[in-house]
Amino acid sequence: MGKSLTYKILENNLISGELKPGSEITVKVNQTLTQDSTGTMVYLQLEAMNIKDIKTDLSVAYIDHNTLQAGFENADDHEFIKSAAAKYGIIYSKPGNGICHQLHLERFGKPGTILLGSDSHTPTAGGLGMIGIGAGGLDVAAAMATGTYTLKVPKVLNIELHGKLKTWVSAKDVILYILKKLTVKGGVGYIIEYSGEGVVDLSLTDRATITNMGAELGATTSIFPSDENTLDFLTRQERTKDYEGWIADEGAIYDKKLVIDLDKITPMAAMPHSPDNVAAVKDIEKIKVDQIAIGSCTNSSYTDLMKVAAILKGKRVHPDVSLVISPGSSNILKMMSDEGALGDLISAGARILEASCGPCIGMGQAPKSKAISLRTFNRNFKGRCGTKDADVYIISPETAAVSALTGYLTDPSECGLDFPKVALPDKFAVYENYFIYPPKDREGLEVVMGPNIKPFPLNEPLIDTMEIPILLKTKDNVTTDDIMPSNAKLLPFRSNIPELSKYCFGTLVDDFHVKAKAADGGIVIGGDNYGQGSSREHAALVPLYLGIKAVIAKSFARIHKANLINSGILPLVFKNISDYEKFDETDVIVLNGLINSLDCGKEIEILNKTKSFSCTLTFDGSKRDVELLKSGGYLNYVKNNK
Amino acid sequence: MGKSLTYKILENNLISGELKPGSEITVKVNQTLTQDSTGTMVYLQLEAMNIKDIKTDLSVAYIDHNTLQAGFENADDHEFIKSAAAKYGIIYSKPGNGICHQLHLERFGKPGTILLGSDSHTPTAGGLGMIGIGAGGLDVAAAMATGTYTLKVPKVLNIELHGKLKTWVSAKDVILYILKKLTVKGGVGYIIEYSGEGVVDLSLTDRATITNMGAELGATTSIFPSDENTLDFLTRQERTKDYEGWIADEGAIYDKKLVIDLDKITPMAAMPHSPDNVAAVKDIEKIKVDQIAIGSCTNSSYTDLMKVAAILKGKRVHPDVSLVISPGSSNILKMMSDEGALGDLISAGARILEASCGPCIGMGQAPKSKAISLRTFNRNFKGRCGTKDADVYIISPETAAVSALTGYLTDPSECGLDFPKVALPDKFAVYENYFIYPPKDREGLEVVMGPNIKPFPLNEPLIDTMEIPILLKTKDNVTTDDIMPSNAKLLPFRSNIPELSKYCFGTLVDDFHVKAKAADGGIVIGGDNYGQGSSREHAALVPLYLGIKAVIAKSFARIHKANLINSGILPLVFKNISDYEKFDETDVIVLNGLINSLDCGKEIEILNKTKSFSCTLTFDGSKRDVELLKSGGYLNYVKNNK
Repeated sequence: MGKSLTYKILENNLISGELKPGSEITVKVNQTLTQDSTGTMVYLQLEAMNIKDIKTDLSVAYIDHNTLQAGFENADDHEFIKSAAAKYGIIYSKPGNGICHQLHLERFGKPGTILLGSDSHTPTAGGLGMIGIGAGGLDVAAAMATGTYTLKVPKVLNIELHGKLKTWVSAKDVILYILKKLTVKGGVGYIIEYSGEGVVDLSLTDRATITNMGAELGATTSIFPSDENTLDFLTRQERTKDYEGWIADEGAIYDKKLVIDLDKITPMAAMPHSPDNVAAVKDIEKIKVDQIAIGSCTNSSYTDLMKVAAILKGKRVHPDVSLVISPGSSNILKMMSDEGALGDLISAGARILEASCGPCIGMGQAPKSKAISLRTFNRNFKGRCGTKDADVYIISPETAAVSALTGYLTDPSECGLDFPKVALPDKFAVYENYFIYPPKDREGLEVVMGPNIKPFPLNEPLIDTMEIPILLKTKDNVTTDDIMPSNAKLLPFRSNIPELSKYCFGTLVDDFHVKAKAADGGIVIGGDNYGQGSSREHAALVPLYLGIKAVIAKSFARIHKANLINSGILPLVFKNISDYEKFDETDVIVLNGLINSLDCGKEIEILNKTKSFSCTLTFDGSKRDVELLKSGGYLNYVKNNK
Repeated sequence: MGKSLTYKILENNLISGELKPGSEITVKVNQTLTQDSTGTMVYLQLEAMNIKDIKTDLSVAYIDHNTLQAGFENADDHEFIKSAAAKYGIIYSKPGNGICHQLHLERFGKPGTILLGSDSHTPTAGGLGMIGIGAGGLDVAAAMATGTYTLKVPKVLNIELHGKLKTWVSAKDVILYILKKLTVKGGVGYIIEYSGEGVVDLSLTDRATITNMGAELGATTSIFPSDENTLDFLTRQERTKDYEGWIADEGAIYDKKLVIDLDKITPMAAMPHSPDNVAAVKDIEKIKVDQIAIGSCTNSSYTDLMKVAAILKGKRVHPDVSLVISPGSSNILKMMSDEGALGDLISAGARILEASCGPCIGMGQAPKSKAISLRTFNRNFKGRCGTKDADVYIISPETAAVSALTGYLTDPSECGLDFPKVALPDKFAVYENYFIYPPKDREGLEVVMGPNIKPFPLNEPLIDTMEIPILLKTKDNVTTDDIMPSNAKLLPFRSNIPELSKYCFGTLVDDFHVKAKAADGGIVIGGDNYGQGSSREHAALVPLYLGIKAVIAKSFARIHKANLINSGILPLVFKNISDYEKFDETDVIVLNGLINSLDCGKEIEILNKTKSFSCTLTFDGSKRDVELLKSGGYLNYVKNNK
């Protein structure tokens, strides 16, 4: 009986536990990555763990989020991360070098290994035939400190690709097509493994575009085989030595299977305000466009941007469109520049931004009021672009480039232009002057902490019985952007939880923090898929700071649930989903005998004291999760067990 | 008796008045420019004037300040300006096209003409042999509406340049050297006219660097002759037809003269926190550098940036330095890209920002706490970079590039590197796809106003007698950055005075707006050179909104004084400067018989009621100024006289 590629890699890295779905295992982590938005917290946590050397083969600290630097806070964070990287033996990537996931593909990712990253799009690395998992910062800090990661073995969903993409259709359209089929919950509990003869025609960065947006499916990660294309990419990156072939066994067993015919896919768009609200571009009414943004970890590869440049060459960006382009890496920008493609973009009238995440994370380029913005990014949650009443459509680079010329959302296959053929360069540019490798002698190095970097909030051990009010009741699909908004104004405060807490649940209600402080603690009632979206642990740390003791929901997004547990906040689920309807804000509830229930894996009774009824909640977690919750979070647990 | 170049141009444009120093004249304005930070207000004012067509030969609305776009406000402002430009027949320059002054040199400036701009560095155009004056937004709006501008004829200071610059010494060092000699007050009341055989070796953009920072001398403007170099520049810009030779008459008469020997100048730096705190780089102690920023309207020309690229080629930016480069225009970026120079900057590890003002106006790239930042910009006022405790040094591009390699402030002439020789391209790139020319048929076009654009504040007619408290007493050299701070967080609110008012005098005291509102009006006591720095009229509009009736100072910076008058705020001067010492905050003062005193040009008695003494103030202004003040500002005046 053949093994899936996923299981082969997990088995290769297995330290303890049984490799079967739902079972908790501990695996060796080969590599970690952090970005600066989650990274400050990661390195504060690493500091608190008091270690000397990291235990991974390679760890990289990228600066790609907070690169606008409206105040001193960002540069202080960069300096803090740089000093921590030097102290612990971590590679530091200076701002301007580019986006962590693109750079990691280019310079460090290795087929067959496991990467843990404090960014939800860490699965991008799956394009290289490795397991890249997005996790909370504490998990990443612990992975650096211990070289391990503990997870519940996900099921494996096999997506078999057949046929070949038509002209003007690209990897982005494939993943949008899959999102339409599976929805933002379709990947929850799964690792998605791609196979089939359709894989052969997808370049490495095409594959990475697809695994990148596996995050939007809710999947633990996505992975492609490591094959000729992988070797080809690594060779052009002068990294042939990092190549290993990794494919699933013949007749591998999967938990679920989906077959996709690539020939059937046409250019797609995710309409406002969810990445799974997908339709074929040709079926969407003709919309006039105000802004088009190209880039992000999803679509900023050399090939993506060269195609855009070829489409725009000798033409003019529509006068009513602001076209902004943020390259994935400094080396991509250099190659485009040297080959004249950047010049073509400029003479067409495109705005060239620094190589960074940029507008994808709301870091600048907020469009005008009520704008229509087309973006080659991965998320179009309401308000994420920085403009609350804007409508964002997620599309491919080809659709973006052609629409930039016409001024409205345009199916590129119907534009009448010649399809741009882009060849890979024999050798990619591989300059490394933005990387700072750690010094050999790291004795006596100290971290540098600016005045905006505040201590990590600590929870208290779990209380057995709590009588506590409901502070907020949300609808389904609340995102981490709702719980802890992230934009250009707030990103500088990622290492300052007290300041951030003023904006908690800011997209849903006003002044939640005032209510929470006045109540001196409380709980939140959530709907389905609570906490979807980014991996940011601030969406758990800020509620912890505000005294949230538990979130009771219909279901949770995986990473956010883990972050809640890491923070010592109980993530509980209604046994009967219909009970959700019976609770209202300001109701006072009682949770009784929590410690015993958790220890024994029993259901938990909840009494609604205001409305005088009881119902049943469940907690789905491992023994380790229970220990973390009883300790009052991961850091307390590590402290108690040192 | 020969005429100065200045007088020849003024005479050519004279509509009324007598051309002698101190006399008020009205001249034809050939061109205007606005940028987006002051521009929204300008076009709100133009709207209020209810005209159909502009009366200038050419007016351009540039977007170069608020290009980060952290919220919808910036893009709404861009859209408003774009719609106003179309309605009134103004050329619109899209964000990404570059910095107004660089673009105006490249595409529109014309020797022998007069340009009025709502930006204090409008004198940059003087490098082209034209008179470019920075003025308040109301003046610029009125210039578009009427085609005229009324000013007091300045005296003319002739700076005669002899000899030739040494290797590694450039135009920036010349103007820093002059700033050291003349200080930030040395140009007040003057137009500076350059002549002498040393002029010949200064390229057009070198000249523009020098006239640009004439603003820091306090000069009304600065001007170079229009000669062979001018023709050469215009020809390479494919604008030979715009060339006219303009030079001073043989034996021209000047009010003052300064002779500079170019051979004697070495690389210079303006040290914190004033552009005239200048020393030779070799005389400054060895300082470790955290950030280096290259660009701005002072030093972002093709030649400047090509020199930097040549110095960095094949080398590495020091790991501890964040080197950021913002090109002056999209065409410069294109040329650098096509010629491989951009690639050299990238492979060295430089951060490439959009073509815009960027960090010069505190729009991003705030350095870390207590940073040392070297900048090729024009101003190093405390806090302007976005980091209050940073130390900013103003230097040349050559000094910046060499220091980026060494990691400390370095005299480039002592670095041992080969001096980079940069030739001009036969033809500059002249793509115009970021420009939107107004449509021929403009009938029925409407302006588009987003929700952040608030009405223009209106003052009330002057009251004859006021009894009023002193709300604030400042020291000497208070800048418009102190009065109305300008940074990435505040720039989005340039068209929202109520919001901005919360930050008035924010670098000097906390919560001035609360005090001002509680007092329901008051006055400010200022020191010497009150209101130096940027031309921003918000530094007058915000005090107007907060009920400031008068500023009494030792002396005023020219543009700010005009802005106060335009807003209907009295700018009064102590007859005996020592009286300044006798007034304290919270003293209540009485101004009596103001209207009669102003009408008759009499001195004004001020009674300090708290301390029971009187002294004398003067008002130095024209009859027109008096009318504006009596009306309660320029807009009221225009309304009354329509």
